[in-house]
Amino acid sequence: MTNDGGGGDLSRLSINQETLKQWSLPDLAEGCVKAGIDKVGLWRAPVQEYGVERTARLLADAGIEVTSLCRGGFFTALDPATRARALDDNRAAIDEAAGLSTDTLVLVSGGLPPGSRDLHGARERVGEALAELAPYAAARDVRLAIEPLHPMYAADRCVVSTLAQALDLAERFPAEQVGVVVDTYHLWWDDQAPAQIARAGAGGRIHSFQLADWITPLPAGVLLGRGQLGDGSVDFRAFRRWVEDAGFDGPIEVEIFNEALWARDGAEALAEVADRYVRHAC
Amino acid sequence: MTNDGGGGDLSRLSINQETLKQWSLPDLAEGCVKAGIDKVGLWRAPVQEYGVERTARLLADAGIEVTSLCRGGFFTALDPATRARALDDNRAAIDEAAGLSTDTLVLVSGGLPPGSRDLHGARERVGEALAELAPYAAARDVRLAIEPLHPMYAADRCVVSTLAQALDLAERFPAEQVGVVVDTYHLWWDDQAPAQIARAGAGGRIHSFQLADWITPLPAGVLLGRGQLGDGSVDFRAFRRWVEDAGFDGPIEVEIFNEALWARDGAEALAEVADRYVRHAC
Repeated sequence: MTNDGGGGDLSRLSINQETLKQWSLPDLAEGCVKAGIDKVGLWRAPVQEYGVERTARLLADAGIEVTSLCRGGFFTALDPATRARALDDNRAAIDEAAGLSTDTLVLVSGGLPPGSRDLHGARERVGEALAELAPYAAARDVRLAIEPLHPMYAADRCVVSTLAQALDLAERFPAEQVGVVVDTYHLWWDDQAPAQIARAGAGGRIHSFQLADWITPLPAGVLLGRGQLGDGSVDFRAFRRWVEDAGFDGPIEVEIFNEALWARDGAEALAEVADRYVRHAC
Repeated sequence: MTNDGGGGDLSRLSINQETLKQWSLPDLAEGCVKAGIDKVGLWRAPVQEYGVERTARLLADAGIEVTSLCRGGFFTALDPATRARALDDNRAAIDEAAGLSTDTLVLVSGGLPPGSRDLHGARERVGEALAELAPYAAARDVRLAIEPLHPMYAADRCVVSTLAQALDLAERFPAEQVGVVVDTYHLWWDDQAPAQIARAGAGGRIHSFQLADWITPLPAGVLLGRGQLGDGSVDFRAFRRWVEDAGFDGPIEVEIFNEALWARDGAEALAEVADRYVRHAC
């Protein structure tokens, strides 16, 4: 497989499926092969719809590696029944990750339970869930990767807002069981990010490195406003230097949630992603 | 003046003018007196429109103290002409603060200049502007209060995102010249906030304490989504305890930007603010 078709080195580029939501899994496999890209990150819902085994076979036949599965998590519920369901669902996610032969399950921790104002307590419940799930994941050669999400999601989506908080949780467990995701969209504003990336790398805990740009104005709900690489405020080369100085040499996954990108022809959107990756992150 | 008309202690409550944007300055003065509130925070534009001296007289006649003026700042421009205009405008803001007999000018630092990805450089330019303005302000008995804004504003509004960053800048100057604003809306998510509030208090740098709640979903542009006290995720009693444990005994200013609140009858909105303040922050 050539990874240099577009005039740049795409050998470490992984395309997160959500970046090209307009594509089915077969479209994604075919499009990536044509573009000289041999890595993808997947999401549970479309994989479940297509079938885990069938997805694994499709991608293996195409010579494509799965660099991560999104996502487990949502661990913060207070009531025991909801909590038990979340743990069951996470065990299923770990099984799916194993079925896809990816070593990394991305975790989004969950927000505050309804009516609660106790961020610290919610973060502790994330730690308790990790304690239950990490051995189960390790037995299936899957690493749990805590993703700190931007502080604007702290109430309704993810009480883990900084890389420091993610590492405080991860370091309670062996590095091969629990690590972190370094996602530029969520961390770009934080002057502590370089030091925390060094900490993560020193501990062997950078399990995933994801790219998206920060653009404004943010849309209502702030979920689908991620920018194409180069359109916003993120210094991707600085982030790449920080993770590589910290010893990370794994896949570099582009994960952009953007309705304008989804409205375009998939091949054209992918070509732009690859071009921007080479221009801004290589 | 009674401060106990509503069944709670309103003696430290200050109403930021922007919370009751539907009111003119005379409405605000009259409404606060009726509600037993003797402190307000003001904004430059409506004060300029009514006249600085006229505003000062109106409020003095009503027995109302001005706890802060919003806002100076926007220091991050790269080109010298824009930078010089910003400094001129900040000197005017300091003069206006002095004319209103308030000791506190709130500063919002400004975002990244167009095309720039250099957050560190932008923060350094904030420091350079403070060095020019702090002596000018001190000569007029005005303190500059750096307000860290939520990280979701880092690109387009304020490159100072945490209390730690604000203190790193403020501590280059004497505490009576440059301090910080502790605003719950911007800081509620940060597990470092308690320690940084203690640091700010130990240095005598808590110049302003502002309350608004965090509610979701965020509206497009994320400017007008602040919540009425008690409607969201902020633990106001915890914040009040942290600032008071740090030695702060100044005014507690409620500053809510919310279109639904502005659409209501001013007196009714103010009564609700006072009630919520007593129920959630006292």
